[in-house]
Amino acid sequence: MRTAEEYIAKLKTMRPNIYLNGEVIARDDPRLKYGVNTISETFNWAADPANEDLLTAKSHLTGEKINRYCHIHQSPEDLLKKQEMTRFYCQRVGGCIQRCMGVDALNALSVVTKNIDLEMGTQYNEHFLAYLKKYQEEDLVANCAQTDVKGDRSLRPHQQTDPDLYLRVVKKTEEGIIVRGCKAHNTIAPYADEIIVVPTRMMTEKDADWAVAFAIQADAPGVSQVVRVSNPRPREELLAPFNNYGSADSLTVFDDVLIPWERVFMCGEYKYAGQLASLFATYHRHSYTGCKPATTDVLMGATALVAEYNGIEKSSQVREELAEMVTIAELVYASGIAASVKSTKAPSGTQIPDIVYTNVGRYHAGINVYREHEILAEISGGLPATIPSEKEFSNAEISALMDKYIMRKDGISAEAQQRCFRMISDLLCSSHAGVVQVAGVHGGGSPIMERIAITGQYDMKAKKNLAKYLAGIKE
Amino acid sequence: MRTAEEYIAKLKTMRPNIYLNGEVIARDDPRLKYGVNTISETFNWAADPANEDLLTAKSHLTGEKINRYCHIHQSPEDLLKKQEMTRFYCQRVGGCIQRCMGVDALNALSVVTKNIDLEMGTQYNEHFLAYLKKYQEEDLVANCAQTDVKGDRSLRPHQQTDPDLYLRVVKKTEEGIIVRGCKAHNTIAPYADEIIVVPTRMMTEKDADWAVAFAIQADAPGVSQVVRVSNPRPREELLAPFNNYGSADSLTVFDDVLIPWERVFMCGEYKYAGQLASLFATYHRHSYTGCKPATTDVLMGATALVAEYNGIEKSSQVREELAEMVTIAELVYASGIAASVKSTKAPSGTQIPDIVYTNVGRYHAGINVYREHEILAEISGGLPATIPSEKEFSNAEISALMDKYIMRKDGISAEAQQRCFRMISDLLCSSHAGVVQVAGVHGGGSPIMERIAITGQYDMKAKKNLAKYLAGIKE
Amino acid sequence: MRTAEEYIAKLKTMRPNIYLNGEVIARDDPRLKYGVNTISETFNWAADPANEDLLTAKSHLTGEKINRYCHIHQSPEDLLKKQEMTRFYCQRVGGCIQRCMGVDALNALSVVTKNIDLEMGTQYNEHFLAYLKKYQEEDLVANCAQTDVKGDRSLRPHQQTDPDLYLRVVKKTEEGIIVRGCKAHNTIAPYADEIIVVPTRMMTEKDADWAVAFAIQADAPGVSQVVRVSNPRPREELLAPFNNYGSADSLTVFDDVLIPWERVFMCGEYKYAGQLASLFATYHRHSYTGCKPATTDVLMGATALVAEYNGIEKSSQVREELAEMVTIAELVYASGIAASVKSTKAPSGTQIPDIVYTNVGRYHAGINVYREHEILAEISGGLPATIPSEKEFSNAEISALMDKYIMRKDGISAEAQQRCFRMISDLLCSSHAGVVQVAGVHGGGSPIMERIAITGQYDMKAKKNLAKYLAGIKE
Amino acid sequence: MRTAEEYIAKLKTMRPNIYLNGEVIARDDPRLKYGVNTISETFNWAADPANEDLLTAKSHLTGEKINRYCHIHQSPEDLLKKQEMTRFYCQRVGGCIQRCMGVDALNALSVVTKNIDLEMGTQYNEHFLAYLKKYQEEDLVANCAQTDVKGDRSLRPHQQTDPDLYLRVVKKTEEGIIVRGCKAHNTIAPYADEIIVVPTRMMTEKDADWAVAFAIQADAPGVSQVVRVSNPRPREELLAPFNNYGSADSLTVFDDVLIPWERVFMCGEYKYAGQLASLFATYHRHSYTGCKPATTDVLMGATALVAEYNGIEKSSQVREELAEMVTIAELVYASGIAASVKSTKAPSGTQIPDIVYTNVGRYHAGINVYREHEILAEISGGLPATIPSEKEFSNAEISALMDKYIMRKDGISAEAQQRCFRMISDLLCSSHAGVVQVAGVHGGGSPIMERIAITGQYDMKAKKNLAKYLAGIKE
Repeated sequence: MRTAEEYIAKLKTMRPNIYLNGEVIARDDPRLKYGVNTISETFNWAADPANEDLLTAKSHLTGEKINRYCHIHQSPEDLLKKQEMTRFYCQRVGGCIQRCMGVDALNALSVVTKNIDLEMGTQYNEHFLAYLKKYQEEDLVANCAQTDVKGDRSLRPHQQTDPDLYLRVVKKTEEGIIVRGCKAHNTIAPYADEIIVVPTRMMTEKDADWAVAFAIQADAPGVSQVVRVSNPRPREELLAPFNNYGSADSLTVFDDVLIPWERVFMCGEYKYAGQLASLFATYHRHSYTGCKPATTDVLMGATALVAEYNGIEKSSQVREELAEMVTIAELVYASGIAASVKSTKAPSGTQIPDIVYTNVGRYHAGINVYREHEILAEISGGLPATIPSEKEFSNAEISALMDKYIMRKDGISAEAQQRCFRMISDLLCSSHAGVVQVAGVHGGGSPIMERIAITGQYDMKAKKNLAKYLAGIKE
Repeated sequence: MRTAEEYIAKLKTMRPNIYLNGEVIARDDPRLKYGVNTISETFNWAADPANEDLLTAKSHLTGEKINRYCHIHQSPEDLLKKQEMTRFYCQRVGGCIQRCMGVDALNALSVVTKNIDLEMGTQYNEHFLAYLKKYQEEDLVANCAQTDVKGDRSLRPHQQTDPDLYLRVVKKTEEGIIVRGCKAHNTIAPYADEIIVVPTRMMTEKDADWAVAFAIQADAPGVSQVVRVSNPRPREELLAPFNNYGSADSLTVFDDVLIPWERVFMCGEYKYAGQLASLFATYHRHSYTGCKPATTDVLMGATALVAEYNGIEKSSQVREELAEMVTIAELVYASGIAASVKSTKAPSGTQIPDIVYTNVGRYHAGINVYREHEILAEISGGLPATIPSEKEFSNAEISALMDKYIMRKDGISAEAQQRCFRMISDLLCSSHAGVVQVAGVHGGGSPIMERIAITGQYDMKAKKNLAKYLAGIKE
Repeated sequence: MRTAEEYIAKLKTMRPNIYLNGEVIARDDPRLKYGVNTISETFNWAADPANEDLLTAKSHLTGEKINRYCHIHQSPEDLLKKQEMTRFYCQRVGGCIQRCMGVDALNALSVVTKNIDLEMGTQYNEHFLAYLKKYQEEDLVANCAQTDVKGDRSLRPHQQTDPDLYLRVVKKTEEGIIVRGCKAHNTIAPYADEIIVVPTRMMTEKDADWAVAFAIQADAPGVSQVVRVSNPRPREELLAPFNNYGSADSLTVFDDVLIPWERVFMCGEYKYAGQLASLFATYHRHSYTGCKPATTDVLMGATALVAEYNGIEKSSQVREELAEMVTIAELVYASGIAASVKSTKAPSGTQIPDIVYTNVGRYHAGINVYREHEILAEISGGLPATIPSEKEFSNAEISALMDKYIMRKDGISAEAQQRCFRMISDLLCSSHAGVVQVAGVHGGGSPIMERIAITGQYDMKAKKNLAKYLAGIKE
Repeated sequence: MRTAEEYIAKLKTMRPNIYLNGEVIARDDPRLKYGVNTISETFNWAADPANEDLLTAKSHLTGEKINRYCHIHQSPEDLLKKQEMTRFYCQRVGGCIQRCMGVDALNALSVVTKNIDLEMGTQYNEHFLAYLKKYQEEDLVANCAQTDVKGDRSLRPHQQTDPDLYLRVVKKTEEGIIVRGCKAHNTIAPYADEIIVVPTRMMTEKDADWAVAFAIQADAPGVSQVVRVSNPRPREELLAPFNNYGSADSLTVFDDVLIPWERVFMCGEYKYAGQLASLFATYHRHSYTGCKPATTDVLMGATALVAEYNGIEKSSQVREELAEMVTIAELVYASGIAASVKSTKAPSGTQIPDIVYTNVGRYHAGINVYREHEILAEISGGLPATIPSEKEFSNAEISALMDKYIMRKDGISAEAQQRCFRMISDLLCSSHAGVVQVAGVHGGGSPIMERIAITGQYDMKAKKNLAKYLAGIKE
């Protein structure tokens, strides 16, 4: 398994293909540091033997100990552990751990490449397993690029005015395929080793050129990443763990990129595009049943803390709203447990979480994101919106007055009160907070996508038959 | 294991101590038939070998095959099966199966009698196990009478003007104890063999006389049951399974009733009153994670069916609201699964579901009961409120017009349409429906009780410490 | 103006065309008494000079004093008074006052008959004004029959397999028109003098035969009313005003009924069908901004009362939920005030409430009906579902125990406690309660219909232009 | 009336007492420009004769034409116009217009100074009217500083460890009073002429020193403003009106500030502290019934626009959620209309909006703020969170690809699409957005404060009596 230092060292060797705020930057740019810090924790904590059972696994390919973020789930227990690991990490970085993307894509590919091979006689699974071996041995970090920019949402890929609005194969050569297009919302990509591309939707026969999946180095020739960083507000004095971790998202442009055949996992088998899209979504939404409770844990802890500092922790409103937060977090977590318990085994041997439980969990998380922030705002009061900067608290002329007037409950220092409200200000009133809200709604699939998955997968006919039976309807 | 016929035969032999609508009635009164039908199904289905694994269990006392409704849960699997059995039965009777009460009380008593004995050197567990053996062998049916009438809710038991407003021990004799008081909302009691009494709340030292638990025959001398039946609207022509099943609730008066010592399971050990109250609630709320999804299944099936008959099943409102119902049902069910997976073993060997998961599940069910009915009402339209009686549809003068004007989508008979709307009218616009709503909110504990349980059990300090860690607060 | 006695006397003279539970009944059948009682109050209270300003008006036709339920609104003040009158009456009968239907239909007809005449040279308004004069002089009571049975909801009137599934003109003669069809959900019709028929939707040219409006005596030849009554649970001992008032709904069959020309207000002018449908809905929804707050008043009062009796009136949950009920009631009432203030005058001189304010008010009421009942259930506890019958409280053998165990807070008599819970049982756990819930959702148009009205009427383009302006978009 | 230029010119002459980010700055610091721009619009638009009726008024003191933001409301019409004016301005600046604070404080003072004088024989109203005359003539701009920093929220002012945690009178001299303390959340204060101080709560006799109200110049000796600015994200290329307007909030420290007697409006009359606090809140919440609908207008317009650009404007989700936004906006606006229509006249002649309608409106706005942002997020998709900076769109190397891949519906330019999403990114994912959310919840009083006002003011006894009447309870 790699160390965080090795991971960072490799980033420095990569080709600078990152566009940020009008410049081209290298991967050691300080604005990417927050995301790199986040990923580094997945190496740091996994290296501690105390966490071996939770954070590492035994490769089903080689029998070697590997980071669980490189593992293909073999059992319900593996899924339960993946979910628990996700909540563990997200608590420690106070937000999205990001590395789940790669493992979710690998698991989906392990299933679908096998299925295609079994039915169509192709050899994608062999390619995939070779790639997986390398991935596990080198302990890689991958983005999964799924969402195309999509142009007019009412048209299929082949119907768009510009055919590149969904990523597609423009040419096949002996060496590999040439792809063109652009994938959006690629979190982690600017500091990942690899980008794994999967389709964003089901495809029809006419969309065959758009039914493509592969893995490629994040700095491969022809790949450009146009980036927006989403970091917490920087601190100069009151350093705090929360402010060490952030993320960055790429709009990843593929400008006629060559993908060698051994890295191609689907190419034209349009019937499987929807299966792969849906399966990646399922694994990724199952990850959300771990990460979203952790996000709620952070908001809930901040709510409980500020209630104590404000002296209102016993008020019925506070107790009620904390219970509401617990209920949100634990219903979502319970749905991930149920999805693991009710999981099934694919022909490839990979364990697949139950789709309905996975989706109701992700859905419930998604429709409560804004509500959770609202609760924190209600209990904090207005100060997170108006608290002056750190510098006023260290300005000789005014700092004594600042410390005097921030005091609330006796026995809690001015610094603790400032730290508490400053973090809540970051949680509520920063651009990072807005990104967390939007990502909380849309990441891994918007609520409407989960509703569609639920409606599509649930056995509603059985429920109608139940109603008919009870009503005495026999036709 | 008993047959339904044996169960019914025994009811006939019981002392008529049932007050209904100004009369004293026997247990074969037709107004109790609906409840008896419901309980009978727990004998009928369990007798089918195909259901052996789900509906029966092996007694940990005797090794004999017993109805699972008499079983003390020995493992997480037992809890998972109890939950699944509950959903199974409730679907088949279109509502509450009722018999869960007894098994939930037994499981709670198995734990608490052992705990008292271990710490106080009493012999309640021995009494209890002897009673349990009989209960399993005779395949009994029990109500659990928990809720006292409670008088002024702002006062403890010993502070009430009338000390009988909580059931209490008025005398101890060699034979046993004499109890007086009144328990409310005792579903199943009018057609149960036994009544198991447990405390309704935690008690202080001054409330010791009120800290009492025991089991007694439902027709024992001094016991009077004042009953309200809650049956579906009777049908004369369009008979339907839904209309066969109902329930009845007793206000059970204990007018100086003698309880023999071997049936006494707590008597004055006030420190354990809260534990027993809470543990019965936990088991019973865990049962709700099985029964409430079944209730949602019925409402959801009816909604899907009427949407089809109305020709609007593809509308986005219908699909959205059905997805909402699925989400409610399966989040609640998932919480019961998680509570089983995260369950723990008591000193008595009994498996206890996780309290937090159990309570978030019951809570989520309780706060969505009215919403589910609202959805069915929205999709059905106004006809459930205004559909004329069966007799208009069979009245020679007018029936042809009735059949003509009830027609909706082609290809569905007038009778099917009538059956569909008539059942929905029962589900929405009957006194039974109102009782289902109120019981859905309060049964097994009101939402506010679950919030209190959640708040009391959750490790909120850990979440505050997480917030402090992230904020860099070290005090 | 008529007296209640005169109204009732006339009902007795009418042809028995009411089908109820397999019989044909006259209008003095005791099961219709509850509805008749309700309407009677609109004569009784209006006769009191103290209420003259609120409950009567000056006819714009004759200058005579008339019951405000016969008045064509001439000003914003008239609309404000109609709304206030509605809340006044609905409070007094504890529910729907029902007579609004007629006045709402008359106001809509006053506008549309004029509009048709102005544009098409017809003489409907003249017919209408003659009819109105009679209506005012005889102080009549009318049902407005709008909703057709509608068959397959995905098809227009002329596309239905059976053309009668929307009421239509089957023949025109010198005397008048012959109509056939069936209207549903006709509240008040079994004890109304008149039925006013208006279209249920907009119509296309091919639907011209279905574009028809008229008024006819409720017992006219060929008219049959198939009825369902919705009365509160009858009381034998604890008589209470709440239990005096109820309603009945007809499925009204028109089996080739002759409508004389002077009573025809639209016949084939399909372009105006939608206008009339929408305008009646607007007036009727404006009435809901008066009646729904009154329904909330009753539920809110009952909630406050039972909270007091239970001894929990100071609890934060109670105060919070009462504030929620106040907010629902007064937001709905405010929207009716705003609709009156922002009303406009039609060419006929009739004042039309603002459509957007009217619809947001009715919509907000409709989506909160179930929630209001849920609040009452939460605060009442389980007793409304399980309270034994009146007869147990008067049964010599058991009444003392009943009175003993229903006691809650000291100082409130057993009878008062019983009365309180018995009314709440009627409000929550009776078939009447279910009808109130369904009618609260669908009456005057389901929430989805109001959403459509809001979307159709609101100037969303102006809001988009505002967004464009702020964003600097000039295309 | 002043011009914007005169207003700005005066700001330049003021003493620099603004602390921002570690510096002391003057009022022409560019970071304050956004707030100054906002206030300037209240001079610009009012100067246009076309807006005379809406944006100006006739002084009841002098008969002169004045800016309506300096006017004491004399009639329901004045209140209706104030509400309409507020929506007008807030639409034009895309957010809070801020100047309402001053006029709301003046109206409250006009009432309460008169009431004190009438009952206690003081001369505050005379002081006040003299001050008002100057205010109107000089067309001043004032912050109202109400919220004290409050220390431990469970203690009254006189109980705090540090008595200065509520602003108080430390000394009285011949010239005036000396005050010490600190007021929080003082929007507009850094670019206002004046600060008007009113109490934040009701006071007891022991709190008399804290019962104080006055007006003072915003740069008076001893006054320090510690400021946080809340500006939209700055633009360098795609300039847009939305990005011109912002705000700043002061923590205003009063370090032994002399207030001349003629500017003191309450000093020790503790019985009136609550009245003044509540009355300012009432006027200010009534202003929110104008400004919050405008905020919804902006979010709604953006939602409708992005739905069009995404090609999903006809989807049922979009139509449903837009209807929800309309309903929120117009219910809140309707409550302000109702509050004006039901307003009453104080002894001073000032018109006071109805408290219940005012509070239900503000409450409904407050509990929907996060929901409105959630809707915009749902319909926009993820792009607001990940859209790269302006500079990528003008970078020669990459701009063509950016323009290519941002394209959605044909016929809408890349620039328009970028402008649309960039503004939505500002509305959802900026620190400004977070401040708008928190201010939307707490500004003018948190939802819990409105619930308290509603509960305190509503005639719940009348509703309980209604329930008793209907239930037949006569005790």
